[in-house]
Amino acid sequence: MRALRVDGSTTNLREVAIPEAGDEVRVRVTHSGICNTDLELARGYMGFRGTIGHEFVGVVDDVGSADTALHVGQRVVGEINAGCGTCALCATGDSRHCSTRTVLGIVARDGAHADYLTLPARNLIAVPEGVSDLHAVFVEPLAAACGVLERCPLAPAERVAVIGDGKLGLLIAMVLRATGHAPVLVGKHAEKLAIAAARGIVTTTETPARGFDVVVEASGSAAGFARALDLLRPQGALVLKTTVAGTTPVDAARIVVDEIRVIGSRCGRFGPALELLAAGAVDLDPLISEVVSLERAEDAMTRATTPGTLKIVLTR
Amino acid sequence: MRALRVDGSTTNLREVAIPEAGDEVRVRVTHSGICNTDLELARGYMGFRGTIGHEFVGVVDDVGSADTALHVGQRVVGEINAGCGTCALCATGDSRHCSTRTVLGIVARDGAHADYLTLPARNLIAVPEGVSDLHAVFVEPLAAACGVLERCPLAPAERVAVIGDGKLGLLIAMVLRATGHAPVLVGKHAEKLAIAAARGIVTTTETPARGFDVVVEASGSAAGFARALDLLRPQGALVLKTTVAGTTPVDAARIVVDEIRVIGSRCGRFGPALELLAAGAVDLDPLISEVVSLERAEDAMTRATTPGTLKIVLTR
Repeated sequence: MRALRVDGSTTNLREVAIPEAGDEVRVRVTHSGICNTDLELARGYMGFRGTIGHEFVGVVDDVGSADTALHVGQRVVGEINAGCGTCALCATGDSRHCSTRTVLGIVARDGAHADYLTLPARNLIAVPEGVSDLHAVFVEPLAAACGVLERCPLAPAERVAVIGDGKLGLLIAMVLRATGHAPVLVGKHAEKLAIAAARGIVTTTETPARGFDVVVEASGSAAGFARALDLLRPQGALVLKTTVAGTTPVDAARIVVDEIRVIGSRCGRFGPALELLAAGAVDLDPLISEVVSLERAEDAMTRATTPGTLKIVLTR
Repeated sequence: MRALRVDGSTTNLREVAIPEAGDEVRVRVTHSGICNTDLELARGYMGFRGTIGHEFVGVVDDVGSADTALHVGQRVVGEINAGCGTCALCATGDSRHCSTRTVLGIVARDGAHADYLTLPARNLIAVPEGVSDLHAVFVEPLAAACGVLERCPLAPAERVAVIGDGKLGLLIAMVLRATGHAPVLVGKHAEKLAIAAARGIVTTTETPARGFDVVVEASGSAAGFARALDLLRPQGALVLKTTVAGTTPVDAARIVVDEIRVIGSRCGRFGPALELLAAGAVDLDPLISEVVSLERAEDAMTRATTPGTLKIVLTR
């Protein structure tokens, strides 16, 4: 089968063996999405070697020896953190922080930019009929956007800003809007902000006045941390989504004096994201820059680094 | 009257006019405590000019035109943040983050290392009879220690570490112990750790293994932030107490990937602190390095910078 492999300095589409299901479930991938994390992994982030890709939708191909109600041919998406299944965290059904977890296409587990992948049966979730493949491929980043509310529940009257008009910032703003909040999206790109504005979201390229109850930092830039602090009221909350390598200079005294909460948020649960998709509550089509064959994955990775590019979906 | 004045480059005990009560209450200060913040203000922190000192106990001297049940001769302590009294925050009874607040001996308001001070009547709280003056002078830092639990409520079974064996770290560890928790105090000074150990607190000079639910950072050093992150379990909470000038390099990706909450904590409410004092639940005597006359305040400020010194109380 074909697989987009990161191997130290290069990222190549190569022919590799189809994985055995074993005690997991083998999925035939039909669509996978290129994420900024893929670009970082290709640059050496986390020292990953193997098949990248963690946003996908596919069809159950082989249930192996797994004890599961899933059946061959069923359309599925998959939570990317595969825990040990036995530790205290896994026992609660949340493997996202299992200390020995593997992560699809990110940590010690081959990923989704391939013809097939395997995941534990408990990671796979059936896709509702009304959700198209091109929308289902957004479940993982949409869950990450929903994760903001999981980590920092918002009252309807609270003032919230989102910094960053990339894919994640747009998804977060849309999720907040779809769940009854009125976010202000702060960005730099008129054409991206227009996508949010079309959903009734207030957007700006200026720095708004201080006084937000919650600011979500999704700019992808180390400078966003300080900018987010500047927008918050005392005792406000900064939800951090941006991961950048190395250290960020932070005015820690400001966090203390203003008694800010800084809340890290990474992955989210798939359930709320699938519900939003099934309800058509989020408009994903404008976020898709192109749909291109896996065969052209190497070129697609290059184009994904071009400023202004949103989601590139690899099809089979 | 005498007042310890910071005036740009120098800190001197000078003779100044006794303040008028006006619409506030004038207090004759009997004891005031030297805080590390006083030392920082003397070095130019926040550009403060005026009388420093914000930990005190005294006696009501003149209620001026204030509408208050306080009476002359009554023993009082005082919350240091004086709000506008009319904004939304002040209306809830919490002036600690009023945007136009003054702060006793810290922001635009003369402080407690003097014979007299004034504060709004609503800031003053009567001291219970059984609490000595030398203990009452600890109400402000003890409230700051209690503020950890106000900002980050702890379940009894949660594992908590405190980094820093200075005055604040010791007080925080004692408050946690007195309220039913089992903190591990991480410090560098055997003689300070012994004070906590005598109260049944587990202490160590080594870095404990990762896995704490909550870590309180009170080391007074910028390096403490990274150290605290290293002790936390995923989805743990870091309560920040340390204020240092400038920026601190922070591994922000760690906060995101491990979904840490970083919770700034500055001042606390006086009520819980007075209750602990009245109950004799915290052993303050070992924290007092010396009690010295206000007349010798300049020398005392110098000695307060000596490593190993704990609280110096200025008496009248």
